Amino acid sequence: MTHPFLDLAPLSAARFASIEDRVAKLLDTRQDVVVTQGEALLPLEGAIRATAGPGTTALNVITGPYGQTFGDWLRDCGATVIDLAVPFHTAVKAAQVRKAFAEHPEIDFVSLVHAEAATGNTNPVAEIGEAVRAQGALFYLDAVASVGAEPVLPDAWGVDLCVIGAQKAMGGPAGVSAVSVSERAWARMAANPRAPRRSYLSLLDWKERWIDGGRKALLHAPAQLEMLALEACLERIEAEGLDAVTARHSSAAAATRAGVAALGGGLEPYVHEAGEAAPVATTLRTPDGVVAAELVARALAADPAVPLAAGGGALAREMIRVNHYGPDATPGAVRACLAALGTALAESGAQDVDLTGALRAASEEWR
Amino acid sequence: MTHPFLDLAPLSAARFASIEDRVAKLLDTRQDVVVTQGEALLPLEGAIRATAGPGTTALNVITGPYGQTFGDWLRDCGATVIDLAVPFHTAVKAAQVRKAFAEHPEIDFVSLVHAEAATGNTNPVAEIGEAVRAQGALFYLDAVASVGAEPVLPDAWGVDLCVIGAQKAMGGPAGVSAVSVSERAWARMAANPRAPRRSYLSLLDWKERWIDGGRKALLHAPAQLEMLALEACLERIEAEGLDAVTARHSSAAAATRAGVAALGGGLEPYVHEAGEAAPVATTLRTPDGVVAAELVARALAADPAVPLAAGGGALAREMIRVNHYGPDATPGAVRACLAALGTALAESGAQDVDLTGALRAASEEWR
Amino acid sequence: MTHPFLDLAPLSAARFASIEDRVAKLLDTRQDVVVTQGEALLPLEGAIRATAGPGTTALNVITGPYGQTFGDWLRDCGATVIDLAVPFHTAVKAAQVRKAFAEHPEIDFVSLVHAEAATGNTNPVAEIGEAVRAQGALFYLDAVASVGAEPVLPDAWGVDLCVIGAQKAMGGPAGVSAVSVSERAWARMAANPRAPRRSYLSLLDWKERWIDGGRKALLHAPAQLEMLALEACLERIEAEGLDAVTARHSSAAAATRAGVAALGGGLEPYVHEAGEAAPVATTLRTPDGVVAAELVARALAADPAVPLAAGGGALAREMIRVNHYGPDATPGAVRACLAALGTALAESGAQDVDLTGALRAASEEWR
Amino acid sequence: MTHPFLDLAPLSAARFASIEDRVAKLLDTRQDVVVTQGEALLPLEGAIRATAGPGTTALNVITGPYGQTFGDWLRDCGATVIDLAVPFHTAVKAAQVRKAFAEHPEIDFVSLVHAEAATGNTNPVAEIGEAVRAQGALFYLDAVASVGAEPVLPDAWGVDLCVIGAQKAMGGPAGVSAVSVSERAWARMAANPRAPRRSYLSLLDWKERWIDGGRKALLHAPAQLEMLALEACLERIEAEGLDAVTARHSSAAAATRAGVAALGGGLEPYVHEAGEAAPVATTLRTPDGVVAAELVARALAADPAVPLAAGGGALAREMIRVNHYGPDATPGAVRACLAALGTALAESGAQDVDLTGALRAASEEWR
Repeated sequence: MTHPFLDLAPLSAARFASIEDRVAKLLDTRQDVVVTQGEALLPLEGAIRATAGPGTTALNVITGPYGQTFGDWLRDCGATVIDLAVPFHTAVKAAQVRKAFAEHPEIDFVSLVHAEAATGNTNPVAEIGEAVRAQGALFYLDAVASVGAEPVLPDAWGVDLCVIGAQKAMGGPAGVSAVSVSERAWARMAANPRAPRRSYLSLLDWKERWIDGGRKALLHAPAQLEMLALEACLERIEAEGLDAVTARHSSAAAATRAGVAALGGGLEPYVHEAGEAAPVATTLRTPDGVVAAELVARALAADPAVPLAAGGGALAREMIRVNHYGPDATPGAVRACLAALGTALAESGAQDVDLTGALRAASEEWR
Repeated sequence: MTHPFLDLAPLSAARFASIEDRVAKLLDTRQDVVVTQGEALLPLEGAIRATAGPGTTALNVITGPYGQTFGDWLRDCGATVIDLAVPFHTAVKAAQVRKAFAEHPEIDFVSLVHAEAATGNTNPVAEIGEAVRAQGALFYLDAVASVGAEPVLPDAWGVDLCVIGAQKAMGGPAGVSAVSVSERAWARMAANPRAPRRSYLSLLDWKERWIDGGRKALLHAPAQLEMLALEACLERIEAEGLDAVTARHSSAAAATRAGVAALGGGLEPYVHEAGEAAPVATTLRTPDGVVAAELVARALAADPAVPLAAGGGALAREMIRVNHYGPDATPGAVRACLAALGTALAESGAQDVDLTGALRAASEEWR
Repeated sequence: MTHPFLDLAPLSAARFASIEDRVAKLLDTRQDVVVTQGEALLPLEGAIRATAGPGTTALNVITGPYGQTFGDWLRDCGATVIDLAVPFHTAVKAAQVRKAFAEHPEIDFVSLVHAEAATGNTNPVAEIGEAVRAQGALFYLDAVASVGAEPVLPDAWGVDLCVIGAQKAMGGPAGVSAVSVSERAWARMAANPRAPRRSYLSLLDWKERWIDGGRKALLHAPAQLEMLALEACLERIEAEGLDAVTARHSSAAAATRAGVAALGGGLEPYVHEAGEAAPVATTLRTPDGVVAAELVARALAADPAVPLAAGGGALAREMIRVNHYGPDATPGAVRACLAALGTALAESGAQDVDLTGALRAASEEWR
Repeated sequence: MTHPFLDLAPLSAARFASIEDRVAKLLDTRQDVVVTQGEALLPLEGAIRATAGPGTTALNVITGPYGQTFGDWLRDCGATVIDLAVPFHTAVKAAQVRKAFAEHPEIDFVSLVHAEAATGNTNPVAEIGEAVRAQGALFYLDAVASVGAEPVLPDAWGVDLCVIGAQKAMGGPAGVSAVSVSERAWARMAANPRAPRRSYLSLLDWKERWIDGGRKALLHAPAQLEMLALEACLERIEAEGLDAVTARHSSAAAATRAGVAALGGGLEPYVHEAGEAAPVATTLRTPDGVVAAELVARALAADPAVPLAAGGGALAREMIRVNHYGPDATPGAVRACLAALGTALAESGAQDVDLTGALRAASEEWR
């Protein structure tokens, strides 16, 4: 086969801007949206480096692995960091955030992950946002794993910096990402002498040269194929309806939880409270004596296509992740996961596995 | 989104010829191969109209729905047709063919379907081929549903007209097809005053203007996208290895059969003898009181992606087809079919469904 | 690179029907449209074999190479054929058709090619249609080379069988095609005992099993990729507007003619009357002593991408074709052809080549 | 049209590594190559921030617009910067670099752009590299516009940090890029306390977690579509042969220069010495009274597809760029540019335009 040149006209500034507008519509926000030319880590890092400095006191909520990274960046910037860590099987409570404010009235920045794909919990952003607004702090939210799986509403919740990526529940590309920025956040950056400028990390460059220039000329050639894939992804979500997309994710989580409860074999939800479980992915705890990574390997050997994974790092012993997001937020994918897990458990010697019951429970819960 | 022009250089005659050569290699044949610009019905019809006439006595073996069509075409051409029909739950035996020859020594044409995707049986072509050669008759074979799922060897078996399509086990396009033609078959056509010429149906046009002209100029613009898809399909099969591809189909059939035996609930193989069951698809008979089309509908409602279908026409009451071919010749697809069938049976009130056992049996049979 | 399976859901009957409806809209017709699963030769042949028989007297107008083929098919069917041939540098006149009717009042079938891509002329179908209607004959039109380049209006013109393909001015695929069929034509077929049935050539099969069945089930698996390409092609034309598409073709023809007139070097329009020149392609006559095929080869050596070709067969000595259709119906393509021809003429020794003037004339004519 | 999910398995670490290896082969280097997940500005910036600091004395050669940016980054990092600027119509001479070393023996870093797409010159990297090695300084090269158009040989030339992108002469994607890093450069980074770490800008992160970890796990999800496009681009170049690709670019530059010399009308090469003109693009100076941007606008109005542009910023009055790179490094594209320019000049009133002669000269020079 010959390999022709990519025969694509360059992505115009107008089309780039229209993709940003579609992201803004997805988030129901009137803030500026910048579509950033790299993985979501780029705007996550860029937003912290642009706003945090030696005068900043940051409340950094840690409910999964990314919170640690955000704390590192904040300390790099010279900020004073107050870490608020909760066990991975639970969400943070708004009361814990309010208590931190009471103890540290100097807090002027809050960083939070909305939903944790790695640990399966989701945090009450709306209620936390009320507390942050009352405090007057800047609110930074990592919504990469929640967008598309549950509502993400920066304006309604008072989020100042809301970062998303398309690679989880949106079922889109990972190579570009986006951040919505409030007026307050732009002002904080403008006043920050350490904010990156003339840099791939700089959000201010895009503010001053792209947005303030009327979005006429891009700062550099974009990742065109990823942009087109993001556009196609947004078109697909608009066509199905965002509500329908998030409903599929909720149903997948509920059906998985119901199926596992009926399955037996000792599997249990990792996140204790159903209300704190993320729609994007369901985490499970294996029974004593069953190594999660081994059970997953057995399940994948029988059916390599099921969206199952063991937890990362030390969690690989005890946590299974059912990644029912994007193209896998379907009854079929949930059923395939239950079938693979049930068979693997039975092959491992579990006596009480009721796969038929599990599949039936999942089907009933979905309806 | 804009809709650009297809930016493809026209398919060259050399590349068209190379695709024909790849098909010949797939069939391990030294016969001429013509890639025909239409669905497989085009060369199936073209080959009969080119070779059969008022002087022809045809033995038409009917083991599924296409045999009826071949008989119609043969009668249209003025041939005398002897139909040899066998029940759909079985294959034809070579002895039945030999018996027909003994009773009708005037037979000079035999038409046969290799594997029947619709009814799930496969016929012993090699052994029948020996008998046909001994008789001196022309041997016409519909290998559309067998190619890619089991060996198809026109030279070794003495097939004179072997028609294939890529849409079943090859996992390729349906819009183009191919036929290999022996020297004897070309001679029969050349001597047939009724053979179509100057016609979309004509194989002789391709012989005289394409093959005899050194394959320099195509007779008309080809279905380029379907040709490129066929080329990509052949590349994929070559890369995996034809033996590996057919092995996946055999395993899928064996695993399905083993899984159904362990499942309970009253499902039984439609084709009684395992040796007569086609690797391309497994047909099942539902128990009394269970309407196949309803059970399939229930299974598809729970998991629309599983490759299940009810039988066609009157068979819709009692036959289920597990279409484990092409991209579905995988352990995962077989397991998904068993899970969907098991759950649907349980929901229909079957008491003895052992889904875990079925999945385990299928996995063990595959290995 | 791996070669994945085509991951396309089968083309649904509803979508197939919607593509037919789009073709009907393109032709502004209320007749039935059948999208045929092969190159345009398939419906061209199928329509003649379905309607012509021993009782038919056909007026076969020959203005290019296809007319000869239509005559052959008509004679194959047993029809009496009256050939009306005109020189390739001109169109047929409606008066010539009327004269034939006067001489042969028994004519009940007229076959005509609308525009000839091979020779560059276009025929006055509207006026001929009036005469055919007055005669009461069935009117068969090959509009493969005109559709997209100029209006094609079967209802307004009284065409009973109008065949199109997408591979010329529509800039689409060649592997599927379409025919619109009037009620009178369906009736003629139904009354014709020789009309193909149960055949890849049969239009009646599609009438009886597809159209009369409410377009619920296709007769066989379609050429899916070609169908999707046809759909995309129709979407593109709708988005640009059919008027704009035909206007680009008219402009390309006018600009080419103007450019050649200014170019010098001895090239002349092959079709004498501008009003008889086809918008799809402009044919040129080379001066004495200049072999067209050699001049084209020289031009293509310098710029292989220009849409130039020598005439076919004996015309290769004296005819050049400027194929400004589909993606080449642009000012840039016309200019590139003029530049390539001008340079090749100058290199061949022509003294009076004014390339700058030619390009300017073409640009002015386009505006 | 429906919008399906991207059905791509995640890009494996092994395939990512194989793409890096192909880039290394393209550059004929044994250095580590990191494929970076952003436009080439990302590794250009990352390499400077990783290696430069308060103790650095940098010789920054400015032969086009990017040199200014590199100087800004170097000063941001605290380096002492010695700018060596040359007029845009010329290349820097190795003697100028040697003179700077003699005057500033403390120089330990040299930044240079290989070829300037914006101004059309190319610098003698091999000879400069000898001088830099003798000085013992670190050598940083921006080869984005040269790679694919002329040899780029970091090992042979002693380049320590060689950055490329695929969007110019390689005809590939702009969203990912690459940098080759020498052992000396890695050591300089490791010793630099200010080198970015835990950052999207960090090269050290990739060294420590990707390369030193045996390239087993990517640091984050890659820009998969851009990576696949880069892979396809590298396959295409390998299939054609890198020498053939660069030869096409040299020929395009020579043919353009020859054509312009024959064209008349007052256009002149912007870069005076042919040996200093970049193969990637040819810049032209318009005659007095002719505004380059207006002439280009006129040419593009007649033929929007020609790869012509006016110079950027103030150069828009006097500079035309013929961007004969990537898919436009062909005789046809060069001829189309000459035709468009010649016609636009004639329409602007130039009397002495010889377009036929220009096209002939270009064709002869190419051969």
